[in-house]
Amino acid sequence: MKNVKALLFDVFGTVVDWRTSVEAELKALGAKHGVDADWAKFAQEWRDKYFSGTKRVAVEGAAFTSVDAMHRQILDQMLASPEWSSIAPLWSEEELQELNLVWHRLGGWPDSSEGLRALKKNYIIATLSNGNVKLLVDMAKYTDLPWDAVFSGEMFQSYKPNPKTYLGAIQYLSLQPHEVAMVAAHIFDIRAASKLGMPSVYVVRPQEEADPHPEAIKTKAEGGDADIIVSSFLELADILEEGK
Amino acid sequence: MKNVKALLFDVFGTVVDWRTSVEAELKALGAKHGVDADWAKFAQEWRDKYFSGTKRVAVEGAAFTSVDAMHRQILDQMLASPEWSSIAPLWSEEELQELNLVWHRLGGWPDSSEGLRALKKNYIIATLSNGNVKLLVDMAKYTDLPWDAVFSGEMFQSYKPNPKTYLGAIQYLSLQPHEVAMVAAHIFDIRAASKLGMPSVYVVRPQEEADPHPEAIKTKAEGGDADIIVSSFLELADILEEGK
Repeated sequence: MKNVKALLFDVFGTVVDWRTSVEAELKALGAKHGVDADWAKFAQEWRDKYFSGTKRVAVEGAAFTSVDAMHRQILDQMLASPEWSSIAPLWSEEELQELNLVWHRLGGWPDSSEGLRALKKNYIIATLSNGNVKLLVDMAKYTDLPWDAVFSGEMFQSYKPNPKTYLGAIQYLSLQPHEVAMVAAHIFDIRAASKLGMPSVYVVRPQEEADPHPEAIKTKAEGGDADIIVSSFLELADILEEGK
Repeated sequence: MKNVKALLFDVFGTVVDWRTSVEAELKALGAKHGVDADWAKFAQEWRDKYFSGTKRVAVEGAAFTSVDAMHRQILDQMLASPEWSSIAPLWSEEELQELNLVWHRLGGWPDSSEGLRALKKNYIIATLSNGNVKLLVDMAKYTDLPWDAVFSGEMFQSYKPNPKTYLGAIQYLSLQPHEVAMVAAHIFDIRAASKLGMPSVYVVRPQEEADPHPEAIKTKAEGGDADIIVSSFLELADILEEGK
């Protein structure tokens, strides 16, 4: 990591706790109309289908659709499905539009703002997210994420793990792959960046893939994929400071 | 300006005082080799030729070249010209590379950081500059410009005043032209934005085009082009706060 000048961050799950924020808004909207449901399951299904949607674009060559549009399509499909169809008549078009923007209003993990501020002192810090630009800008203002730049799959008309997203951000930074580290809570993201010669930092986050089994993730020294494994951005800032 | 949600800023001259910073580095590099010259003239020629270069791309359809590359080509051409050729043998390749990056290290006007911070409370604030992404990111860190997003001609492979730069940034913000105001110290930029339906703010800056004749710039109410004319970002923040 000695040559690293910039850190690119995955956002959903790595920087923000999408699960808590989305569940809370679903629950509040449900309560407003006197309906209870398994909102954790609803949120997870919404997220999983979004992930499948971006993967179809990134890997299978499907046409690019912005994440705002994709989130809305999935929401409509879910509400038309047998499992959730009882909710559909309760929510107005205006409420659905507002609910769809919950992904712009996700709260950070407890260390996110302070950790990013610490890392920003010595590195360029930027998003490299599948979220669209407006979503990332709104979220940064909402939950205080002090990005130096916002890079989005939208700018490269594809999604991670397609190489053109990583290489596009690296080109905008006028740097080489070995000078730009990927920071993510998902191994597919770490592996895609590593293949391109980027160093990588795996972040273990609550209920993301390595929790409750952080031992499943290994550093390169242990035969795994990541250069560094941490549980918070403050821990990462300390490690990078020591390594200087 | 009532419907405005985002402000796009021209950077060179509008947010940063390129003249003072570039002259100072030229003078210091000259002094290092015991040479004196009209550094103000050198800086102005460098800037003017850059402006012509971006105009050829924006208006005449010349191939896109990044501003870093364009600045270096112009520097090399100038040092090969009779007027400046006596300097050329003195400066090493390493010094020229470093000098070329002076455009990444421009100081803000006295009100820039504080004014942008005030505007950021109520608006999305972003660059819309012909400077390349890395230049804008380096400059923001160097002189404390708290952008919510960095938009550059590089992202749209053209330069202002080509409409695709303004429309590209507006699309990334998921907004309509009447919701995004252009803030600039140059009338060509204000006019290009106005033609697309964007509100505009003209900023009078020392030694930029309206100084020493600020009366040459008129608001729309006076038959001119700008919605608002100000002399600082703090003044703009006050006006927008009053208009709420």
